[in-house]
Amino acid sequence: MADIPARTELKVTTGPIRGSRKIHVEGHSTSSGQAGVRVAMRAVDLEPSSGDPPVSLYDTSGPYTDPQARIDIMAGLPELRRDWIRARGDVEEVAQRDVKPEDNGQLGPDRSGGVAPFPNVRKRVLRARPGHNVTQMHYARRGIVTPEMEYVAIRENLGRQQAADAIRDGEDFGAAIPDFVTPEFVRDEVARGRAIIPNNINHPESEPMAIGRNFLVKINANIGNSAVASDVASEVDKMVWSIRWGADTVMDLSTGRNIHDTREWIVRNSPVPIGTVPIYQALEKVGGIAEDLTWEIFADTLIEQAEQGVDYFTIHAGVRLPYVPMTAKRVTGIVSRGGSIMAKWCLAHHKESFLYERFEEICEIMKAYDVAFSLGDGLRPGSISDANDEAQFAELYTLGELTRTAWKHDCQVMIEGPGHVPMHKIKVNMDKQLEACGEAPFYTLGPLVTDVAPGYDHITSGIGAAMIGWFGTAMLCYVTPKEHLGLPDRDDVKVGVVTYKLAAHAADLAKGHPAARAWDDALSKARFEFRWRDQFNLSLDPETAEQYHDQTLPAEGAKTAHFCSMCGPKFCSMKITQEVRDFAAKQEAGLLNNSFVPSEGFPERSRGVEGREQDVGEAKSPLQKAGGAGGGPIDLAEAEAGMEAMSRAYNEGGRELYIGQGRREHD
Amino acid sequence: MADIPARTELKVTTGPIRGSRKIHVEGHSTSSGQAGVRVAMRAVDLEPSSGDPPVSLYDTSGPYTDPQARIDIMAGLPELRRDWIRARGDVEEVAQRDVKPEDNGQLGPDRSGGVAPFPNVRKRVLRARPGHNVTQMHYARRGIVTPEMEYVAIRENLGRQQAADAIRDGEDFGAAIPDFVTPEFVRDEVARGRAIIPNNINHPESEPMAIGRNFLVKINANIGNSAVASDVASEVDKMVWSIRWGADTVMDLSTGRNIHDTREWIVRNSPVPIGTVPIYQALEKVGGIAEDLTWEIFADTLIEQAEQGVDYFTIHAGVRLPYVPMTAKRVTGIVSRGGSIMAKWCLAHHKESFLYERFEEICEIMKAYDVAFSLGDGLRPGSISDANDEAQFAELYTLGELTRTAWKHDCQVMIEGPGHVPMHKIKVNMDKQLEACGEAPFYTLGPLVTDVAPGYDHITSGIGAAMIGWFGTAMLCYVTPKEHLGLPDRDDVKVGVVTYKLAAHAADLAKGHPAARAWDDALSKARFEFRWRDQFNLSLDPETAEQYHDQTLPAEGAKTAHFCSMCGPKFCSMKITQEVRDFAAKQEAGLLNNSFVPSEGFPERSRGVEGREQDVGEAKSPLQKAGGAGGGPIDLAEAEAGMEAMSRAYNEGGRELYIGQGRREHD
Repeated sequence: MADIPARTELKVTTGPIRGSRKIHVEGHSTSSGQAGVRVAMRAVDLEPSSGDPPVSLYDTSGPYTDPQARIDIMAGLPELRRDWIRARGDVEEVAQRDVKPEDNGQLGPDRSGGVAPFPNVRKRVLRARPGHNVTQMHYARRGIVTPEMEYVAIRENLGRQQAADAIRDGEDFGAAIPDFVTPEFVRDEVARGRAIIPNNINHPESEPMAIGRNFLVKINANIGNSAVASDVASEVDKMVWSIRWGADTVMDLSTGRNIHDTREWIVRNSPVPIGTVPIYQALEKVGGIAEDLTWEIFADTLIEQAEQGVDYFTIHAGVRLPYVPMTAKRVTGIVSRGGSIMAKWCLAHHKESFLYERFEEICEIMKAYDVAFSLGDGLRPGSISDANDEAQFAELYTLGELTRTAWKHDCQVMIEGPGHVPMHKIKVNMDKQLEACGEAPFYTLGPLVTDVAPGYDHITSGIGAAMIGWFGTAMLCYVTPKEHLGLPDRDDVKVGVVTYKLAAHAADLAKGHPAARAWDDALSKARFEFRWRDQFNLSLDPETAEQYHDQTLPAEGAKTAHFCSMCGPKFCSMKITQEVRDFAAKQEAGLLNNSFVPSEGFPERSRGVEGREQDVGEAKSPLQKAGGAGGGPIDLAEAEAGMEAMSRAYNEGGRELYIGQGRREHD
Repeated sequence: MADIPARTELKVTTGPIRGSRKIHVEGHSTSSGQAGVRVAMRAVDLEPSSGDPPVSLYDTSGPYTDPQARIDIMAGLPELRRDWIRARGDVEEVAQRDVKPEDNGQLGPDRSGGVAPFPNVRKRVLRARPGHNVTQMHYARRGIVTPEMEYVAIRENLGRQQAADAIRDGEDFGAAIPDFVTPEFVRDEVARGRAIIPNNINHPESEPMAIGRNFLVKINANIGNSAVASDVASEVDKMVWSIRWGADTVMDLSTGRNIHDTREWIVRNSPVPIGTVPIYQALEKVGGIAEDLTWEIFADTLIEQAEQGVDYFTIHAGVRLPYVPMTAKRVTGIVSRGGSIMAKWCLAHHKESFLYERFEEICEIMKAYDVAFSLGDGLRPGSISDANDEAQFAELYTLGELTRTAWKHDCQVMIEGPGHVPMHKIKVNMDKQLEACGEAPFYTLGPLVTDVAPGYDHITSGIGAAMIGWFGTAMLCYVTPKEHLGLPDRDDVKVGVVTYKLAAHAADLAKGHPAARAWDDALSKARFEFRWRDQFNLSLDPETAEQYHDQTLPAEGAKTAHFCSMCGPKFCSMKITQEVRDFAAKQEAGLLNNSFVPSEGFPERSRGVEGREQDVGEAKSPLQKAGGAGGGPIDLAEAEAGMEAMSRAYNEGGRELYIGQGRREHD
């Protein structure tokens, strides 16, 4: 055990993300009388030449990127929500359930090498006082705005003080995204089940976040797949690493040995909600024999994990006996592990699933700790061929039925979705889910839009994820390049997270989320003005962006040059655009508005889109904000000087013109 | 010069793609009386246990992957089309235009190190005899089915002998994709301008291919961006490397020194159509001063490149003087290099573009060599903010006008498109292009769906590319991870090509291309049956797939195991599915058809989708073809033996259950 802390401290990545500052936005006291909350975000300062204020970005990385925070993996994170939870007066402290050998899969001799127990395990844990319900949905339905809800509201606004600067331009397919998120709006979304705030009362370390169609699209990263059960350090490191790059929640899918202790290390050190699939551990407790599973063992596992602080459980209660035969003619049968465990149980006993039959008893456990349901899609398709088939949709409608049951208990619910779906079959998945599950948040794995690219399934699934996120999916479960092939390493985790973050942001843009567009515009403007450092710092992955740049351009010089080497001064795009602006200014209105386009050329709908675009351009273009069409903050003297310098280099260099580099594109 | 051959022969990658065989499908004599054609494809042989025939895949790699072919970069490729071209009796041989120093940018002293001229330059080249027109469109409109058209037809069918095995299941937005492609269908598509076959009569080395909405979606790779003008070897290598991984055409965007000689090396060794942007070279000829460009210099450049065999020219004739001011208020101005050159020229002279005014004269040149137009979108948006604005669509409608002019001359035309477009604004680009340009093939760059992920723009653009490909775009211009940051190296080229290949295939699937689905089903079935080698060999990138697999699974054993280490024998999905199938067989029809779903649960439209899916499942599932619902070719004895072996390993290994690996997915 002695080596655990050393290895852990060595391996966890801390410190600010390159070019970002940790900031905290203060809230105001809420209707529940709590003191205001402090919401962590990151700010990117721009070069003075931009004339623009810092850009605020959503920050999932927790204290690990805060230079002020002292990180001690052995002690766990500070309990941000401790007082909020206790102030509600509806919880009681009880002795934590004793850890049994089988909780760690200790049946027979342990060949795993063992895992050091977390040094700071709580002896006493919280649960709802008898007759009480501690779910955020329960408070919301009683009109209470919790500090968690206020935290979420401030967080979703990304530091905007009001809606004035919101660029609304998108197609949200009937979502109800507000210009500005208020705590009351959050309460209402949670109350009607359109959003969840997964935060177990035994995970006070978590920073509240919302998963819902009317909020920013979230992403989940999976860890704990390690075949070396004893390597807790690398699992904790993967968790910290994945939230650094943007994972909003993390699922611990650990199996096998030491599963209980591994989870404790992860939960105590996680500022984001942790999800699990309890049936995995229950299976360990019966030696891996699916047919030996019982309700009692499963329920005991739920309580064990709820006491540790797991924030949401994947439960495959929709895999019903009559649906199992519907998978018989599939190309890839049942690919969900939890789904096949339950299918196996149902067939072995020729009985209905105990998860389905005991569902209300499960609700009683969930609401005593505020663990959210993630209703698993155990019959999801595992291939393009099986997409949208009878078994998949039969289960989906059962998940809708279970959602209504959970809501009777004020339990928070999200619904898991596929999987493998070709592009033309994606939207119907969203439409059916909204209809079957009463707008409960949808949480999908991809979907992969083709099966022919193993090794690139972060991309095949990123395509489907961006699309279904646009259509209304609230959280996207990442897929790494190793999907279907092997275990993701640290690099795979980063690539998976960044890929899903860009897919989620693309969805926010397309939905017209008011806080999404400003980020793109800031980066685009930095690119146009050759503010290379701002371009890197505003990137999802500043380190990779700068590294790629420096491979072909002289590092320091090019970062400040007012053009990139591909253009040369003869037609630096910025210079030409300045000429265009001067020319435009001289034009008489007639030429500017000349109608060269046949009126039938622009159908009503399209003109609508354009109309908005034009208005937006007029009112909100960063260049305009920075000083009108005249080019704003561009320092022409400085630019001319740069031109002069480059002009010499250009002539000495043989008057070569390069392309394909910097912000200028092919042809 | 002496070292060129050595370096070249060293660097070009030859030999079969892992797991694939080069095959040739024979055609029959055509209406034009030609002998039948031999169409190259690659075949992937499956393990005998599959019971399935080899899978035929589209092959862009040319002779380089043919063990029978002798590759000599110094001599160039054999002239596949030589006799077809001459047999038409409408071409004459003329002396090739003398190469001038300025063709290679030799103004002033050469500091580039120089480039060895291609050793095998033709002294005499072909052009149409006076009064003749040698475009494929001209033949098509006269009812002639050329060998090129027959080659395309066979190629698009991927070796299928008839339409019987076609799985039709998709949304094609009004395209007219046939179950089976006939030479007559190709002729008709070319005649009406919905498809082009870019193959200059002076590029007889090329293997005919079609770009059109009713054919497989194609991808283009850009090369020639090297800042080191003398490194011809690496440019030729990049061309060969990009077609190995699936590039259907290659654009040579070389600039600066030795541009003429570099192009000759590339064209003579390319089995795919080569595209260029002639304005780049014209600009070299006037020392890089845009305002010094003249029609005479541009026309001379077109003839120079047409004689070398360039198959399509990007020409920015839609950048008209009145549109230039429309870009004044953009965040990123004009990002197309060709577009900014012409904008600069128009402003400097306050005159209409000579490309626009002399367009019919350009057509006269194009039809004398059958060079296809790729009408450039010089005013495309360079950022999310500028997408779908007035300038972009003004130019698009002018490109439509120019398309109709080119068609008067029977010139082949495709239209270039954006660029940077958020998801909700992509489809209107396709709709407007179809309407404005009379269904001429659309050729887009991405589009990128967000600007916040430099370093990952192959993915941000791959998302947009898959979507617009589904909507009807005929060819997708790749974007590499270095876009906006630097020059792509060999690895970037491969990642860009594979990413775009998977996007194009996802589009084919969604459109319901009859030849697309079989590939996914073959790989899905191999995955389900744990035929690891087949899974690798069927992948877009077999080498990466196997490498990722071997990083975590024992190489040889796992590749033949009938399950992957993540499940263990206790619930191998294949075994469970077998049980499910036996169970299902025993079920009385009543239970199978039990109606658990509220009828209002399935709106008409959705039921339609499902209906097709069900029918497809019943009639066409590979498993069905392989022997009905009983599990087909699965050898249960072999499986049991494997189970037994794994069962021992499983118990000895401490009964660990792993997940996240192989074909089983998260939860």
